[in-house]
Amino acid sequence: MAVNLLPPDPAAVFPVAGIELGFAKARIKKWDRHDVMLMRLAPGTRVAGVFTQNAFAAAPVQVCREHLKRGDGIRALVVNAGNANCGTGEQGLAAARDTCRAVGELLQCAPEQVLPFSTGVILEHLPVDKIRGALPAAVGELKENAWATAAAAIMTTDTVAKAVSERVEIDGVTVTVTGIAKGVGMLQPNMATMLAYLATDAKIAQPVLDRWVKEVADASFNRVTIDGDTSTNDSFVLLATGKGAHAEIRDESSPGHDRLRAALIAVAQELAIKIARDGEGATKLITIEVEGAKDADEAHRVGKFIAHSPLVKTAFFASDPNLGRLIMAVGNAVPELNTAGVSIWLGDVLVVDRGGRAASYTEDQGAAVMKPEEISVKVMLSRGNARTTVWTCDYSYDYVKINAEYRT
Amino acid sequence: MAVNLLPPDPAAVFPVAGIELGFAKARIKKWDRHDVMLMRLAPGTRVAGVFTQNAFAAAPVQVCREHLKRGDGIRALVVNAGNANCGTGEQGLAAARDTCRAVGELLQCAPEQVLPFSTGVILEHLPVDKIRGALPAAVGELKENAWATAAAAIMTTDTVAKAVSERVEIDGVTVTVTGIAKGVGMLQPNMATMLAYLATDAKIAQPVLDRWVKEVADASFNRVTIDGDTSTNDSFVLLATGKGAHAEIRDESSPGHDRLRAALIAVAQELAIKIARDGEGATKLITIEVEGAKDADEAHRVGKFIAHSPLVKTAFFASDPNLGRLIMAVGNAVPELNTAGVSIWLGDVLVVDRGGRAASYTEDQGAAVMKPEEISVKVMLSRGNARTTVWTCDYSYDYVKINAEYRT
Repeated sequence: MAVNLLPPDPAAVFPVAGIELGFAKARIKKWDRHDVMLMRLAPGTRVAGVFTQNAFAAAPVQVCREHLKRGDGIRALVVNAGNANCGTGEQGLAAARDTCRAVGELLQCAPEQVLPFSTGVILEHLPVDKIRGALPAAVGELKENAWATAAAAIMTTDTVAKAVSERVEIDGVTVTVTGIAKGVGMLQPNMATMLAYLATDAKIAQPVLDRWVKEVADASFNRVTIDGDTSTNDSFVLLATGKGAHAEIRDESSPGHDRLRAALIAVAQELAIKIARDGEGATKLITIEVEGAKDADEAHRVGKFIAHSPLVKTAFFASDPNLGRLIMAVGNAVPELNTAGVSIWLGDVLVVDRGGRAASYTEDQGAAVMKPEEISVKVMLSRGNARTTVWTCDYSYDYVKINAEYRT
Repeated sequence: MAVNLLPPDPAAVFPVAGIELGFAKARIKKWDRHDVMLMRLAPGTRVAGVFTQNAFAAAPVQVCREHLKRGDGIRALVVNAGNANCGTGEQGLAAARDTCRAVGELLQCAPEQVLPFSTGVILEHLPVDKIRGALPAAVGELKENAWATAAAAIMTTDTVAKAVSERVEIDGVTVTVTGIAKGVGMLQPNMATMLAYLATDAKIAQPVLDRWVKEVADASFNRVTIDGDTSTNDSFVLLATGKGAHAEIRDESSPGHDRLRAALIAVAQELAIKIARDGEGATKLITIEVEGAKDADEAHRVGKFIAHSPLVKTAFFASDPNLGRLIMAVGNAVPELNTAGVSIWLGDVLVVDRGGRAASYTEDQGAAVMKPEEISVKVMLSRGNARTTVWTCDYSYDYVKINAEYRT
C-alpha cells in the first residue's frame, strides 16, 4: 500500500562509528520476526531525546526521561515492538526498569545508562520475561553495519522499513548521519514521531545536541500526521558518538555546524516523508505548503487542519478535486481570516483565487492534477511571512480495514 | 445505514400555529425531489439564530446575520439543498439577496425580512434562476401541517429525514415545539448544526429567545460531531410565533420558563442524536459522557477528542474494545492530566480503573458491550465537577465510500 516507498538498500544505510546493533525474536506477538532491537553505544556517546506530550505517556517514556535527566552517560537503547507498555501503572514502570537492568547486566553498565522504548498495543502488560530471554541473542549479534535490519525490527503496522543515511564533510573529515523511524498510525507527533533514532559519529557538544533534537523534530517529525492522534509512546532520540576526527561542534560558529544540522534535518525529513508514504492505508502522499501566515503557529495550524480533515483525506483518496473541503478546512483553522486573501494551488493549478473559485480553473485541470500518487497543495493566506510544509496521506478503505482489524 | 432511525411519523410532528411550509423542485442537482423549502412566518414572529464560526461563512449565512441585525421582523425563511453558495464572493451575496427579493415579492414583504439558507456543494455558483422559478409553486403549497415534508426537503447526504415535536403546558395553555434538522457530514457544529430550525407558538420575549438560541445550541447541536469538520453553512434558528394564549415569557420567573426551555433543549437534543444516528456511513451511535472535569470546556474537550479520533471511531466500527485508543484520546485532550484519576466505563463495564486496565475486566465483557448498535462511554477524570455528553458515530467503509464519491 505504501506510496512509492521501497525498503532501504542495506548498502546505502551507512554504519555509524561507535554504534552496534543486535536483534532477537522475543515473540511478544505471534510474529515470526525480530521484535527486539538493542543498540550499544560507545562510551562518550551523547544523547538527547524528545517525547510525547500525551498525559498517558508510556512507562518506557517516563523511564527514558528519568535516565536522560541523570546525565550518567547512556550506553544502550532497547526497543520492543508489539506491546506499548502504556497504561500499565507501577507494574509497567517496573517492567521497563527490569528490561534496563537485564540490558545493563549483559552489557556491563548501570540500568540507568539504558533507555527503553516500546511500541504496540496499549494497556496490556509487557511480557518482560520474553524480552529478558531474547536479549542474550541480541547481544550475541551486535554489529555496526545493521541499520536496515534495525529499521525492520521496530516496525508495527509499518509495511516497509524506513532508514536514511547521509555523509557530510566537516573540516575535511567525513561523518555519517543515519536514521531509522517507524510509524504509521496513532500518528501526529507532538515533539517526536512514534519511534525515531538519528545517529551520527560527529562530535557535538551536549547543549548543541539538546537544541538540535528539538529543532530537527520541529522541522520533520512534528510536521507529519497520519490521523491526528498523538501516540502515548512517541520518542525521538538523537545520538552523537563523537568518533569523527574533527573539532567538536560547540556553537553556531563551529566549522560544519550548519552543514551537519542541515544533514540531520534532511535525513529526519526524509524519514518523516517515508512515514507519510507508509501511513495506514495510504494510496497518496500529500504535501501541504502554507505561505503568508501571520506566524509559524498559524502556518502549522492551517497545514494540520487540512491534513486532519477526513473529508479532505477521503477526497484525495478519490482523486476528487473537492475544493470546498479545502476552503472549509482553512476557514476552520483561522476563523478571523480575511477570505479574500486566500489562494490555493493543487500542484501548479490555481484553483482558489482570492477567496473564490479561480476563473481559469476547469474540472479537467483538477482531475488531472489529482490523479498522481503524489500531490501538493499550496495555500497562500496573505497575512504575513510565515510558512511551513506538512506531510500526510489520504484515507482509504484500507485505513478503516487496518484499524478495524488491528487487534485481531 | 442510519442507526435505529426511522423517518418521522407526520402525525407526530405537530404544526406550529403561525408557521406555514411550502416546497418545490428547483432541480439544483439531478435529484427528482423537493430541494427548496419555504417557511412563511406570521407577523410578530420572533427569530434568533446562531451561525458557523468558519471564516468562509457562506453567502446566505452573511445575509442572515445582516437581516437579523436589522430587527425589521423576519417574515420568511427560504432553504435550498444541493448548493451551499459558499466561496462565491460578491456574486454569491447577490444570489442570496436575489433569492430574498423573489420571496419578498411573492409574500409581499421586504427582502430584508427574509432569511436565506443553502446547503450542498461549496465553491459553485447558486443557480438562482432555478430557485426563483420554483418559488411560486412553493408559495402555492403553503400549509401549516407539513413539517415532516420540510425535514425531507432540506436533506443532502442525510438518509432519513429528522423532525421532532413536543407539547408543553404553560399556565394551562398547550404550546407546541417542533424542530427539523439536517446533517450529516462536515459536521462538528460550532454554535449550530448545518441546518436546524426549532419553532414554537409560545410567546417569548426577544431577549429570552436570544439567550435560549445559544443555550439550546450548546446543549444539543454543539455536542454532536460526525467528522470534526465545521461546515461553512451551519445555521440554527429558533422561531417563536407568539400565537399561544399565555402570558409572554419575559424572564426566569415567568410561568413556563423552565418547562419550555427544557422542551426546546429536549427537542434539539433529540434532533442532534438523530444527526449522529445518520452520520455518514454510521453503523453505531456512540454516547460519550465525561464527568469530573475541571470545567465545562475541559469536559467538552475530552468528549470531542474521543469523538474525533479516527482510531477510536474505527475500533467502534469493528466492535473492538480497543481501550488503548480511548486513553490515548483522553491523554491528548488534557496533557497535564493525572492519569491515576482516570476511570472509563464501556456501557456498565469498568474497563479502565484509576489509569490502568481494570483488574475485573475481561475481553469477553468488552466484546459483549461493544456488540450493540448503541454504545456508551463514560470517562471519570476526578479533577472537578463539570460534566457533559457528546454524541457521535463510528467510521465505516461506507464513510470513505460516501465521501470519496460525494461529487460523482
